[in-house]
Amino acid sequence: MQKSDGMCKGELTRQRIIAEAAPIFNQRGFAGCSMQDVMEATGLEKGGLYRHFSSKEELAAEAFRYSLERATKLRMEHLDRTHGSLEQLHSFIKRFVETTSTVPGGCPLMNTAIDSDDGNPTLRDLAREGFGNWRARLCRIVEEGMQRGEIRKKTNPRSVANTIIATLEGALMMSRLDGKKAPLKDARAALDGMLDGIAAH
Amino acid sequence: MQKSDGMCKGELTRQRIIAEAAPIFNQRGFAGCSMQDVMEATGLEKGGLYRHFSSKEELAAEAFRYSLERATKLRMEHLDRTHGSLEQLHSFIKRFVETTSTVPGGCPLMNTAIDSDDGNPTLRDLAREGFGNWRARLCRIVEEGMQRGEIRKKTNPRSVANTIIATLEGALMMSRLDGKKAPLKDARAALDGMLDGIAAH
Repeated sequence: MQKSDGMCKGELTRQRIIAEAAPIFNQRGFAGCSMQDVMEATGLEKGGLYRHFSSKEELAAEAFRYSLERATKLRMEHLDRTHGSLEQLHSFIKRFVETTSTVPGGCPLMNTAIDSDDGNPTLRDLAREGFGNWRARLCRIVEEGMQRGEIRKKTNPRSVANTIIATLEGALMMSRLDGKKAPLKDARAALDGMLDGIAAH
Repeated sequence: MQKSDGMCKGELTRQRIIAEAAPIFNQRGFAGCSMQDVMEATGLEKGGLYRHFSSKEELAAEAFRYSLERATKLRMEHLDRTHGSLEQLHSFIKRFVETTSTVPGGCPLMNTAIDSDDGNPTLRDLAREGFGNWRARLCRIVEEGMQRGEIRKKTNPRSVANTIIATLEGALMMSRLDGKKAPLKDARAALDGMLDGIAAH
C-alpha cells in the first residue's frame, strides 16, 4: 500500500483494511473469513469496519481486486513487447512457475473461482472477468505471433490461451497441496513443448 | 446409496447423512457448510447428527471420501487394460471432459485441495492421498506403455501424469466458472497432442 499525500485518513484506513483482509480471504475463502477475523487482524472495532464497508461482500470484492491486481502485476509486467510472441509466452510461463504471489494463499483467481462457482455471484463475476482479461492478453500475444509469421496460421489463439492458464493453475493447485515444485515444473516443460509445436518453422 | 440387508438402521442413517452432506460440502467448502445446513438437509436434530459424527471434521472427511469414491469410479472404471496404454490415456481424458461428477459442485479433489491448502490438515491429507493415487494410476499406464514399446523410452511418467491431471483440473475450474465447455475441449486437444508426442513411432 502506497501512502499518497492526497489521501485522507479515512481512505488510508480503508486501504489498510483491504490490504490486511486480502490474505485472509485468499487463504480461507469467503465463508472461512469472518468480519470478526478482519477486526482482529486490523485492530478495529465493528463500527470502524462498517464505517468503511457496508457488508462482508463489499470488503471481499475489494480484497479480491487487491489480490488480483498484485498477482497480475507480478505475472504480466515483465512482458516486453519488443520480444517475439513465443518468447513472451515462454517468459510468462517461466515467471508463473518461478514466482509466488505476494498475497499469501495461492492464486486469487483460482481460489475465488472454486469458492464462488456454486456461490457468491459478485465474486464469481469478478473471477470470470479476471480470467477473461488474462485469456484476452494471451490471445493477443498469439495473434501477434501469427501476424508476424512466427506462429503457425492454423493455430487457435483461444485454445492456446486456455491451455496455458488451465495447466498452470491446475499445477499450482497440486504444487501448493503437496508443498513440492514438481507439478509446476512438469507443467512448464509440457507447455514449452506445446509452444514448440505451434512455431512456424 | 445401496441398501444392504446386513446393514442396521443406525448404519443406514449414517450413510444417508454422508450422502446428503457430500454435495453441500463439495459445493460450499468446509467453512461454508455448517452442521445446521446438514440438519436441514437431512431433517435430523442436532442430537441425531452428533450420535453419528462426533464433529463437523469427521463428517466432512466422510463426505469427501464419498464424493471422491464416486468421482474415481466415474473416471476410472471404464479403463480397459486389454487396450493399449495410449488408448487408455486418451479414453481417460475423453471421459473426464465429457462426463460430470455425480456429486454436484465439481471435482471434490480440487475443491478440497483449494479449500484445505491453508487450512484443515485432515482434509488436506485426504486430498493429497487422492491426487497421489490418481497420479500413481496414470504413471502405471505410462510405464506399461514404455515396457511394451508403445511409448518412448525417455518419457517421464510422473511428468505426463501431473500434466494430464493439472490441465484437466484447471480446465474444469475454468469451464465451471464460465458455464462453457471450451476450456475442457481445448485441454483435451492439447493433451491428445502431448500424447501423440510421446508415442514411439
